[in-house]
Amino acid sequence: MRIDIITCLPRLLDSPFSHSILQRAQDKGLAEVYVHDLREYAVNRKKQLDDYAYGGGAGMVMMIEPIDRCISALKAEREYDEVIYMTPDGEQLNQGTCNELSLRKNIIILCGHYKGVDQRVRDAFITREISIGDYVLSGGELAAAVLSDALIRLIPGVLSDETSALTDSFQDNLLAPPVYTRPAEYNGMKVPDVLLSGHAAKIEEWRHEQAVERTKQRRPDIFKE
Amino acid sequence: MRIDIITCLPRLLDSPFSHSILQRAQDKGLAEVYVHDLREYAVNRKKQLDDYAYGGGAGMVMMIEPIDRCISALKAEREYDEVIYMTPDGEQLNQGTCNELSLRKNIIILCGHYKGVDQRVRDAFITREISIGDYVLSGGELAAAVLSDALIRLIPGVLSDETSALTDSFQDNLLAPPVYTRPAEYNGMKVPDVLLSGHAAKIEEWRHEQAVERTKQRRPDIFKE
Repeated sequence: MRIDIITCLPRLLDSPFSHSILQRAQDKGLAEVYVHDLREYAVNRKKQLDDYAYGGGAGMVMMIEPIDRCISALKAEREYDEVIYMTPDGEQLNQGTCNELSLRKNIIILCGHYKGVDQRVRDAFITREISIGDYVLSGGELAAAVLSDALIRLIPGVLSDETSALTDSFQDNLLAPPVYTRPAEYNGMKVPDVLLSGHAAKIEEWRHEQAVERTKQRRPDIFKE
Repeated sequence: MRIDIITCLPRLLDSPFSHSILQRAQDKGLAEVYVHDLREYAVNRKKQLDDYAYGGGAGMVMMIEPIDRCISALKAEREYDEVIYMTPDGEQLNQGTCNELSLRKNIIILCGHYKGVDQRVRDAFITREISIGDYVLSGGELAAAVLSDALIRLIPGVLSDETSALTDSFQDNLLAPPVYTRPAEYNGMKVPDVLLSGHAAKIEEWRHEQAVERTKQRRPDIFKE
């Protein structure tokens, strides 16, 4: 999978992609992530990327031409499955969408900043608008990092233990059950006996019950009998 | 506002907090963000932070003792309003929660990694469990950065134009209307005439209609007449 991220703040994304799973996936050749500095596609001498909103009001709007030039340059090199714009009014990201998008070969992720991008960018170039949640961030960069992480960790071979992602929350409409590790007792707080029993079937049953219980209690909206 | 983030991957958060609004807020003295390396609170010589899950199964679990030591050290210095754990089975973050939490003085954010933290950490130390969305990430670090950004930008004085945050999506149960900037025409795509009219009342009316329309179409679940 190849992800091209377009942003006016490329340095903001330096560290998330050079650590942990995102770095390992790139080292293993399972994912490629390129961060493109929109300023290199600026048109005028001031390297201007944003301007006042037509009609007035607070906040700056990102201009269409630099974005057009950057996307066009990328599309001239290869075909893209999706050109995604991160925006709080996009479709809400969920695990199903992540599973689906993790199968794509090449995607572009455009990060908005300030008040967002000129609407014509969205009308003309964007194939999918995605929101990571019902809140507003100062820019799309962290949202792009979140989406990239959620996708890349699903690529087979990225997680050290391949079965690990399948037992995550949401993969079966259930939240994950509680987990415990050593010591068995800490300041009087004990690990549930069943987990120490060595009885695999009982442990599996307990975990399922706990997952169902937790889901009913915390997220009745995603629970399915 | 002071935010203390506890993580086993502190370097992952280097760049998000040293750019853009998060950096400016710290430079202006409006927010302080400290990232704590959990490994400094490790107990044994191997600096071990995680161990196998009791009962078996894929994935590692973060141990209670280093986390206890880190949180205790912080609490010895000052009072905290919340000790937040970022987890996909927590309450779903939304703009209302962000508005509320942005008024807090001191908060701790604990990042899980691997399969998450020992359940006893959650039972004993955590006052609030928050999810940034219905998907799984490789760790809580990006989620902590997202939460921090969403809170810090709401602190008065952080955004250069104070009215900017109030016209964001979600602040009034409406998505934001489309925005446009120069040029007025780009490859045949024109800015709507009303925005060029200079007629403030008509522009306001158009924006409200567009916001209502967009919300009804994209997010009927948040729309209120």
